[in-house]
Amino acid sequence: MEPYIIKARYYETDQMGIIHHSNYIRWMEEARIDMMEQMGYPYRRFEEMGYLSPVLRAECEYKKSVKFGDTVKIVISLGDCGRLKFSLNYQMYNLSQGGVLCAAGSTRHCFLNRETGLPVMMDKELGEFFEAMKSMASE
Amino acid sequence: MEPYIIKARYYETDQMGIIHHSNYIRWMEEARIDMMEQMGYPYRRFEEMGYLSPVLRAECEYKKSVKFGDTVKIVISLGDCGRLKFSLNYQMYNLSQGGVLCAAGSTRHCFLNRETGLPVMMDKELGEFFEAMKSMASE
Amino acid sequence: MEPYIIKARYYETDQMGIIHHSNYIRWMEEARIDMMEQMGYPYRRFEEMGYLSPVLRAECEYKKSVKFGDTVKIVISLGDCGRLKFSLNYQMYNLSQGGVLCAAGSTRHCFLNRETGLPVMMDKELGEFFEAMKSMASE
Amino acid sequence: MEPYIIKARYYETDQMGIIHHSNYIRWMEEARIDMMEQMGYPYRRFEEMGYLSPVLRAECEYKKSVKFGDTVKIVISLGDCGRLKFSLNYQMYNLSQGGVLCAAGSTRHCFLNRETGLPVMMDKELGEFFEAMKSMASE
Repeated sequence: MEPYIIKARYYETDQMGIIHHSNYIRWMEEARIDMMEQMGYPYRRFEEMGYLSPVLRAECEYKKSVKFGDTVKIVISLGDCGRLKFSLNYQMYNLSQGGVLCAAGSTRHCFLNRETGLPVMMDKELGEFFEAMKSMASE
Repeated sequence: MEPYIIKARYYETDQMGIIHHSNYIRWMEEARIDMMEQMGYPYRRFEEMGYLSPVLRAECEYKKSVKFGDTVKIVISLGDCGRLKFSLNYQMYNLSQGGVLCAAGSTRHCFLNRETGLPVMMDKELGEFFEAMKSMASE
Repeated sequence: MEPYIIKARYYETDQMGIIHHSNYIRWMEEARIDMMEQMGYPYRRFEEMGYLSPVLRAECEYKKSVKFGDTVKIVISLGDCGRLKFSLNYQMYNLSQGGVLCAAGSTRHCFLNRETGLPVMMDKELGEFFEAMKSMASE
Repeated sequence: MEPYIIKARYYETDQMGIIHHSNYIRWMEEARIDMMEQMGYPYRRFEEMGYLSPVLRAECEYKKSVKFGDTVKIVISLGDCGRLKFSLNYQMYNLSQGGVLCAAGSTRHCFLNRETGLPVMMDKELGEFFEAMKSMASE
C-alpha cells in the first residue's frame, strides 16, 4: 500500500498564511479513495453497485501548521471494524518539514443500500472487501 | 428583487490576505439561486421536474480585492436570452469599502432534459420562467 | 446570543446528493466568527492586535444528512475553558426537516502571539474576552 | 514543460453528479503554479521577494462535464504578454473520456510590489522570468 502524497495548494491557504484546517478533512477523503483504489475496490464501483458510504464522524488534531507548497504524506490504518461500521486513522507527515507528524485524524463510515436506505452487513454483502480491510489492519 | 448580500468568510481568504478569486464564482451561484427563489422558481424545483441546468461558461473580472468580513452586495441582470441559452451578469459592490464595484462577472446557462440529455427549448417547455426572465431584463 | 443560520449552498453538495461532510467544519467557523462578533470581539480585531487563533482540533458527528437549500441553525456553547485553551461545542438543527439535530461538533483553540509564536495566557492578556466566554458557558 | 494532471476529487462533485464548475478555476491555479515551478520560478519565491500576483480576470468555458475519478490533463500556453499584464490560456483534456477537450479557460495577471502596492514593470524588475514566459509562447 503506497501512502498518499499531497502538495498543499495555494487555494487551500487562509489569511493566517497556513493551510485552512477544513482542507485536512478533504485530504483524508482523497487518501481514503486512493487507498480503496489500491486495494482493488475503487469507490466509484460501490456507488455503481447501489451502495452509499456516508461519513458518520470525522475528526482531526492539528499539530504543526502546513504551508503552501509543502508535501504531505498520508498513511492510513484501520481502526475498529465491526459488521456495520468501521473507522480509519490517518497520520499526516510533512515531508517539507523533516517528516514531522503535522496532523492525525480519523473518520467513521458505514455502507447503505441506496434503494432501501438500510445499513449493509459488511460481512454478508461485502465479504471480500471486509476481509481485505481487516487484513490491512494487521499489517 | 432584493440584491444578494454576502459577508466574506474566513475560510474564503488566502495567504495574500484577500478573498481567493475562485470564491466569486461560488458567490455568483449563491446570488443566482437566491434570485430564482425570489422569482418564485426555486432551483430545487427544476431538478425535481427533471431538468439539469449546467453552467456553460463563467467569467469574473476582479477590480478591488475583498477582505474577510467585508459585506458584498450582488446585483444580477439578464444578459442575452435566446431560446436555448441565457446569460446573467453580476455586479458586486463592497459595502464595507464605500460601495465600490469590486468585481463584475457573468455566467451562461442552458437547461437539459435529464432523461434524454437534450437541450430544452425554454419558450416551449419553460415559457413562464422564460417570460419572467425577460421581464427582469427590461427593469 | 442569536444562533447562526445557514442556507445550504448548491456548491456544498456532492454527488451523493447531500452536503459534503467537510463543509460542516466551515459552517462551524462561520458560526464561531458570528458569535465573536455578537460578543463584541470580532475575530478581525484579534488579528489586528497581533494574535493568531489556530484550530487545534475539530470534530463532527453526522446524524442526518442535509440537503441543498435546507436551513440549518447552529447553536454554540462553551466546552472546557482553561487559561491556554478552550473548546466550543456546536449543535446543528435542520429547520427544513422539523428542527432535527443533524450534526454535533466541537473545535478546540488557543491564541498565539504572532511575533513570538508563544501561546497567550488568556486570563492575563485577554481577560475581558476570557470572562465573556466563561459567562457564556453558564447561560 | 510537462502538462499538469489532475484526478477529479470526490469533494469536487456536486449533486448533478459532475465536477462543480468553480473547481476548474482552482485547477487552473494548480496547473499555473506547477508550470512556474517547472520553469524554475516557484510562486512561493515571488511572495518571498515581496511581490503579489493577483488574478485580474478568470474565465472558463465548459464543454463536456467531468466526473469523479476522471483524469484531466491541463496544457497551458501564454496569451498576450505586456509589460504590466499577461494572460494564460488553459486547455483541459479528459483522458478518461478519450482525451476530449472538456474545458478551456484563461486567466489574467499582474505583479504588485507588496510595499508600495504599485504594479511591477515586468521587463525591468522580472526580466528573466518575463523572457522565459515569452519564449514559452513561441513553443
